[in-house]
Amino acid sequence: MSRKRPIYEGKAKVLYEGTEPGTIIQYFKDDATAFNAQKRGTIAGKGVLNNMITEFVMLRLAEIGIPTHFMRRLNMREQLVRKVEIVPIEVVVRNICAGSMAKRLGLEEGMKLPRPIVEFYYKDDDLGDPMVSDEHVLALGWATPEELEEIVGYSLRINDYLCGLMRGIGIKLVDFKLEFGRIFDNEFSQLVLADEFSPDNCRLWDAITNEKMDKDRFRRDLGGVEEAYQEVARRLGVLPESAEIESLNKDATT
Amino acid sequence: MSRKRPIYEGKAKVLYEGTEPGTIIQYFKDDATAFNAQKRGTIAGKGVLNNMITEFVMLRLAEIGIPTHFMRRLNMREQLVRKVEIVPIEVVVRNICAGSMAKRLGLEEGMKLPRPIVEFYYKDDDLGDPMVSDEHVLALGWATPEELEEIVGYSLRINDYLCGLMRGIGIKLVDFKLEFGRIFDNEFSQLVLADEFSPDNCRLWDAITNEKMDKDRFRRDLGGVEEAYQEVARRLGVLPESAEIESLNKDATT
Ligand SMILES: Nc1ncnc2c1ncn2[C@@H]1O[C@H](COP(=O)(O)OP(=O)(O)O)[C@@H](O)[C@H]1O
Ligand SMILES: Nc1ncnc2c1ncn2[C@@H]1O[C@H](COP(=O)(O)OP(=O)(O)O)[C@@H](O)[C@H]1O
Ligand SMILES: [Mg+2]
Ligand SMILES: [Mg+2]
Repeated sequence: MSRKRPIYEGKAKVLYEGTEPGTIIQYFKDDATAFNAQKRGTIAGKGVLNNMITEFVMLRLAEIGIPTHFMRRLNMREQLVRKVEIVPIEVVVRNICAGSMAKRLGLEEGMKLPRPIVEFYYKDDDLGDPMVSDEHVLALGWATPEELEEIVGYSLRINDYLCGLMRGIGIKLVDFKLEFGRIFDNEFSQLVLADEFSPDNCRLWDAITNEKMDKDRFRRDLGGVEEAYQEVARRLGVLPESAEIESLNKDATT
Repeated sequence: MSRKRPIYEGKAKVLYEGTEPGTIIQYFKDDATAFNAQKRGTIAGKGVLNNMITEFVMLRLAEIGIPTHFMRRLNMREQLVRKVEIVPIEVVVRNICAGSMAKRLGLEEGMKLPRPIVEFYYKDDDLGDPMVSDEHVLALGWATPEELEEIVGYSLRINDYLCGLMRGIGIKLVDFKLEFGRIFDNEFSQLVLADEFSPDNCRLWDAITNEKMDKDRFRRDLGGVEEAYQEVARRLGVLPESAEIESLNKDATT
């Protein structure tokens, strides 16, 4: 880690300058935060698992034609990605009402929505990532109408694919957050999926028991947080040997 | 079986009058045909497995908002569905080049297509289900422009979802065939997914070994046909106890 130049330290990842121009390295930490960083903690091995899960999901999405920033996993905690200009919008797709939506709209958590709902949040930690509508996005120039249409189209395709992927391993995809970015090629700009896809950024419920298998276990102090992340990785077939995680956890603390 | 009034006997299923008005019963046979019925045989237990697999897929697709004809499974070989007016088009979605497409276009079987390709075939056994374009569909009035747009939209969503579902259980969805139908409600008509989804109508390759897990094993005399259908059902979590299948096979022959 120390040889590389850090560009940005976020809540769950550190970004380093990449080995090639136009690339960056995402280092996945075990740090966990919730409620806009009011609650802090660590989830042992999370960084390793989120690195693996994100790699798997990005590769699968590329296979169905979703452009992504992912290039390759470098090691247990790092992946090389294309550097992008992040569109300052967090895109949330919801299939089942939960979390802030249940609270804000007075709806029951667990209610199946009549159709997937796409929400936008303005990416600004100081403001607490406020919800916005396409009106704000377009009027304030955070994305062009063409970009927004593409973002919604990709998000719904990703939702369909990942609903299937998760259902195949006995999991309901309740909701998830995506970020998109721009890659510039002369005067042209291409939208790609960026950031990560992991239990940090989605809600996953066991299809039979409805047991939570995501960061809500941490947010709500439900216990079994590490085990839940491991179980998602195991069902996806990307759980590393536990010995490997343990040795990495030692690395990280020494 | 014998108490119900048969409406139509197809190659893989028999349709009976349903127990309620506007419904029919699909009875899944073990009969298998290929190359427009020039090759004939049976696949022991296929009807049971295709009944289970179709039920599972139709329920999952309904969950993501695809309207289907499926109402409920009645027993090991039968399911109750809404009676529809079948749109006389077989819709084929391809992710990887295989079968007739490889042959017709001189392409290599196994070539990943740049994007999913939607094909239409005119449903007419005597003509050998000839390939047609949207021009034929629209000019000959087999579907309205609005219906065709809806059919393509549903087919691509189904493709995304099922690619994910299959990938979750270690299977590549190479291609598949769908049929749609109309349900009339006074002057309005609604499109729904009809017929079946089973290894009879799609190509499924193991994600690691590329081993074929579908009717191509029968078409190409590769052996292990029953085992392949069973393995698909097992991975989807819908394989009935083998004792149940055996007793049903006995039923069917007595
Ligand atoms: N390919 C990329 N290029 C540039 N920035 C990226 C890329 N992918 C993700 N990012 C940004 O890097 C940061 C990842 O760190 P993270 O700990 O998730 O941050 P945050 O605390 O903002 O959630 C995010 O701000 C994300 O927008
Ligand atoms: N809900 C439905 N209502 C009416 N007909 C249907 C429905 N679902 C499927 N069918 C038709 O029933 C037949 C099913 O039998 P099958 O053995 O698959 O026939 P085929 O030999 O034509 O493939 C097909 O012709 C199909 O179009
Ligand atoms: Mg983040
Ligand atoms: Mg048929």
